[in-house]
Amino acid sequence: MAESKENLLMEKIVSLCKRRGFVFQSSEIYGGINGFWDYGPLGAELKRNVKELWWNTMTRQREDVAGLEATIIMSPAIWKASGHVDTFSDPMCSCKACKKLIREDQWWPLMCEQDWVQSLATIVEVGTGSINAEDLLKWAKGKGKHSAPNLALIRNPEVTLSWLAEDAAAGKRPADAKDYYLYLATEQRGANGLVKPCPHCGGELTEPRPFNLMFKSHYGPVESEDNVCYLRPETAQAIFAQFQNVLVTSRQKVPFGIAQMGKAFRNEITPRNFTFRSREFEQMELEFFIKPDEAIEAIHGSVITVPETGHPGEPQPAWGWQAWHQYWVEERVRFYEGIGLARTTLGFHRQTAEELAHYARACVDILFKFPFSKKDENGELKGEELEGIAARSDFDLSQHQRFSGKVMGVFDEELRTAWGKLPKEKQDDLWRRYYENRKKYLTKTGVEPEAAAKQATEDANGLTKGQYLPHVIEPSAGVDRLILALITNAYTEVVKTDDKGKSETTYVMKFHPRVAPIKVGILPLLKNKPELVKKAIEVRDLLRPWMNVYYDDGGSIGKRYARQDEAGTPYCVTIDFDTLGEKPELLDTVTLRHRDDGRQERLKISELLGWLLSNTR
Amino acid sequence: MAESKENLLMEKIVSLCKRRGFVFQSSEIYGGINGFWDYGPLGAELKRNVKELWWNTMTRQREDVAGLEATIIMSPAIWKASGHVDTFSDPMCSCKACKKLIREDQWWPLMCEQDWVQSLATIVEVGTGSINAEDLLKWAKGKGKHSAPNLALIRNPEVTLSWLAEDAAAGKRPADAKDYYLYLATEQRGANGLVKPCPHCGGELTEPRPFNLMFKSHYGPVESEDNVCYLRPETAQAIFAQFQNVLVTSRQKVPFGIAQMGKAFRNEITPRNFTFRSREFEQMELEFFIKPDEAIEAIHGSVITVPETGHPGEPQPAWGWQAWHQYWVEERVRFYEGIGLARTTLGFHRQTAEELAHYARACVDILFKFPFSKKDENGELKGEELEGIAARSDFDLSQHQRFSGKVMGVFDEELRTAWGKLPKEKQDDLWRRYYENRKKYLTKTGVEPEAAAKQATEDANGLTKGQYLPHVIEPSAGVDRLILALITNAYTEVVKTDDKGKSETTYVMKFHPRVAPIKVGILPLLKNKPELVKKAIEVRDLLRPWMNVYYDDGGSIGKRYARQDEAGTPYCVTIDFDTLGEKPELLDTVTLRHRDDGRQERLKISELLGWLLSNTR
Repeated sequence: MAESKENLLMEKIVSLCKRRGFVFQSSEIYGGINGFWDYGPLGAELKRNVKELWWNTMTRQREDVAGLEATIIMSPAIWKASGHVDTFSDPMCSCKACKKLIREDQWWPLMCEQDWVQSLATIVEVGTGSINAEDLLKWAKGKGKHSAPNLALIRNPEVTLSWLAEDAAAGKRPADAKDYYLYLATEQRGANGLVKPCPHCGGELTEPRPFNLMFKSHYGPVESEDNVCYLRPETAQAIFAQFQNVLVTSRQKVPFGIAQMGKAFRNEITPRNFTFRSREFEQMELEFFIKPDEAIEAIHGSVITVPETGHPGEPQPAWGWQAWHQYWVEERVRFYEGIGLARTTLGFHRQTAEELAHYARACVDILFKFPFSKKDENGELKGEELEGIAARSDFDLSQHQRFSGKVMGVFDEELRTAWGKLPKEKQDDLWRRYYENRKKYLTKTGVEPEAAAKQATEDANGLTKGQYLPHVIEPSAGVDRLILALITNAYTEVVKTDDKGKSETTYVMKFHPRVAPIKVGILPLLKNKPELVKKAIEVRDLLRPWMNVYYDDGGSIGKRYARQDEAGTPYCVTIDFDTLGEKPELLDTVTLRHRDDGRQERLKISELLGWLLSNTR
Repeated sequence: MAESKENLLMEKIVSLCKRRGFVFQSSEIYGGINGFWDYGPLGAELKRNVKELWWNTMTRQREDVAGLEATIIMSPAIWKASGHVDTFSDPMCSCKACKKLIREDQWWPLMCEQDWVQSLATIVEVGTGSINAEDLLKWAKGKGKHSAPNLALIRNPEVTLSWLAEDAAAGKRPADAKDYYLYLATEQRGANGLVKPCPHCGGELTEPRPFNLMFKSHYGPVESEDNVCYLRPETAQAIFAQFQNVLVTSRQKVPFGIAQMGKAFRNEITPRNFTFRSREFEQMELEFFIKPDEAIEAIHGSVITVPETGHPGEPQPAWGWQAWHQYWVEERVRFYEGIGLARTTLGFHRQTAEELAHYARACVDILFKFPFSKKDENGELKGEELEGIAARSDFDLSQHQRFSGKVMGVFDEELRTAWGKLPKEKQDDLWRRYYENRKKYLTKTGVEPEAAAKQATEDANGLTKGQYLPHVIEPSAGVDRLILALITNAYTEVVKTDDKGKSETTYVMKFHPRVAPIKVGILPLLKNKPELVKKAIEVRDLLRPWMNVYYDDGGSIGKRYARQDEAGTPYCVTIDFDTLGEKPELLDTVTLRHRDDGRQERLKISELLGWLLSNTR
């Protein structure tokens, strides 16, 4: 039941998104296309604001980050080097009967969408070992054939029920609905043991096989293997591929970052949760390149580490990967706080050693508690990933160096000078550690042990001359899921009861002013008074070059406020007769109304722009 | 020779683009991918500025335009309705020998890239009818086999030369290099007449066949005909498909527009001219919906038309499509002027009746005079298309209504009221004209005459009740070609000669401040004076929240100015000892240096932000 309350909330949010023009289904007039969503007028502005803030925060406001805007289609060699061609896949089962494909890890959630799960639980006497077979069959027939377990019962009730009876007699019985389902649905029990049924038709599913998630196309006029191309499944790889070009042209030195925003595509088997998991989405990724710890140690004597909680403050030259990683986690949390997602709405997941990719040293996921999020053992929402901040070692540049044959490393004068002054012992120690790390990486990515040792020796020798492959910290965020988090977070129902006890629900989208699609509504008190309209248009034209404004003269002031509340406009400015000087002391002042508490104040028009700029930026 | 001078200019521009980080070849470390280009740090900022200005001008600063951001992959049904599945194709020939494909209209330009064209002209006695066959053969052998005509000569010199002799004797001879080429290369002359040779290998080309330019992929887990999808070849169609959703949620009424920017993809056979014709590009499109002229006439008695030159001023209620079209042409020219493309750098092409699509009533292309543009009969650059402004009638909405079965029209209260007051005669006249237009459109798009007449009758009856399909004016611009125009326009070589007569060339990118990637360079006079550095950082932090700044303390001031000149930074601010109060009257002032004329002036720090804001916006 708790489940449905949250589903209901999502339904209301989806409905408001369409009604107010935040999000539409792509190609709706043609029945839509699964996993693709469009942003309407308000959604497009919201998204633009979020991207602009990210870009400003990560690039323009920093000395140590340069921007990049690469293409969506790149050389397929990039995806070979990154591993996406070979391993970017989900295990998938297909149904031998209806031919549909099901992502293995989605099988049970899809099953759960069938109403039989709840129903079964109520008609079976749980825990007694006995099964009311007749009731079960009656129920199954009543439900029809649309849910798979019923199929098993209806198709072959005698056999199924005799199994149930048999097993029950032997004291074997499924402990919960999932087992029970498998149990019931397995008409083919026997030689192969349990076979998973198709959630759609009850047919038999194949064993899982890998399915590549990249959208594939062909460039150039011939459709052949030679000109296969992919839609990028992430924006990150272009940053690695263009690392040297950006390094040279931006006059940056390690540590520095390259930022990119843009579309990415994943052919998800089961897109779900509105815009959260879609097939076309947008990413905001930073690759922040740092010196390997061995280089830091050579230069600074030792590597500074920082506590795993809290912001470690301004970057220090002797920071190793751990400090940089923690720094970026906290920088990113600050960003989310700065656009209205309080820390309490977020969750954190530090990946365990088992979860980490072999090359990764750490990864922290920043989660947002969506209504559809999984829950922990206490029934609290755990949250779903908004952004992952990964310490990826030198894996990426190393792969591209190996596959392209181009040098992806840098020369570090400071390191070369420092190295010469190190005692032999220290040199040997650092050499050995760098060598081991390189060899380990090379071996893990499939290089033969002998070749790996040879390459690692070369790399470690390079280190002594000031050369290395930078390591990287990657804060990688999804725009669309952030937009959905902001919308969810902003969504507020306000129930107002009038004198006669009649209550009405209104909706207020409490966006942070920084991201709000419209910053201010300009409302002349009456639209049939030319002096009011003239003044209102003056105010509009004063503000419009600086921010997105919405001029509205339709309906009562209350209705217009409500409209702006739904759009999430933080402020409304009303031009009334006092503005025109009816009370002389109020000449050229306006009423400024706050969205979240309805508070109103009187401001001079001459102060309005300044006030709004400092309260919406 | 004139040709090569302009090629040289393009080469220099391409080189500067890479050197300064405006544009890189996509996937360069893997040998690139033809037709794809990345924007480096400066290019990404330039592009962001241009897009931001377009969005502001077209959407935020107007009451009558709403924004949209739709997906790149949409339902394939959209491209069926738009006609792209059936007709968005180029005629292509393929080579029977080397299997390469050549766009028919690119065949001759590709031929011209072979050096034989010029050479032939010099070794053949033009105009005498005689051919020096021996010289020709010698020349062809010397050139080797890499150019097609030589192949014909070398492979079969006797036959080729005997043809030449024969024809020359008969007084037949090719008048220019193109004919001559065909002549020489046609080993297969005879039954089929002339056969076009392959520019790459000299082999025989097939007859041209249509080749669809849309990138094709599949969504969902199965690669079948049922889930083919396309990368959009233009952003416009999503606007039509979402017309009703935007109309309802934005509270707009016709006339109003929907604006969208975003990536589009065309699998060009021969991408060329740097970023001008690439396979992945970005568009900025507005679809501005207007009432059909018959509705205007019903409401206002007559339709206002305007002169075909000059801006017609503020929109009027009685404007028909012609006035709106002219309005948008001039609005767009103003936009280009506002970012530094003077009218003299632009060209205009009004499509002729033959060039127009069958549904279009007019189309004006705004051209920019690129170095690679074609020339007119006077040798002047004609320019290449930056933007087309088309009057597309109600074609698009009508197609989507027909294919989706959804109502794409609007109800217009004003029209309904006005219609009732019209004399019967006028009603009949308007009814008839609207009927004829609708029938003509329906018939042209393949609807059977009888069905078309029936539908047109319904539509015309709808008009009498205030219903119609809006017509549309479409200003459609390409971002990447605009960026290339801005770069070309900004590119300036400055030759300085010192006292000793030694000259040096420097490069100044004279971008309009509005689009310049960096607005201001912040330069402390010396980097080893902490007071100067501290002050410079204060100035940087004062300006940075408001604009993109670049802090630079490396090298002499002259070198730093030159660096910013190449980046196109319009202003540099130098913090010197006077800033610190060495001359007390200059305390807290800085030197502001103008990029284009090197002029310097002294400004108070307190006035700096205001000055820069008003000079860069």
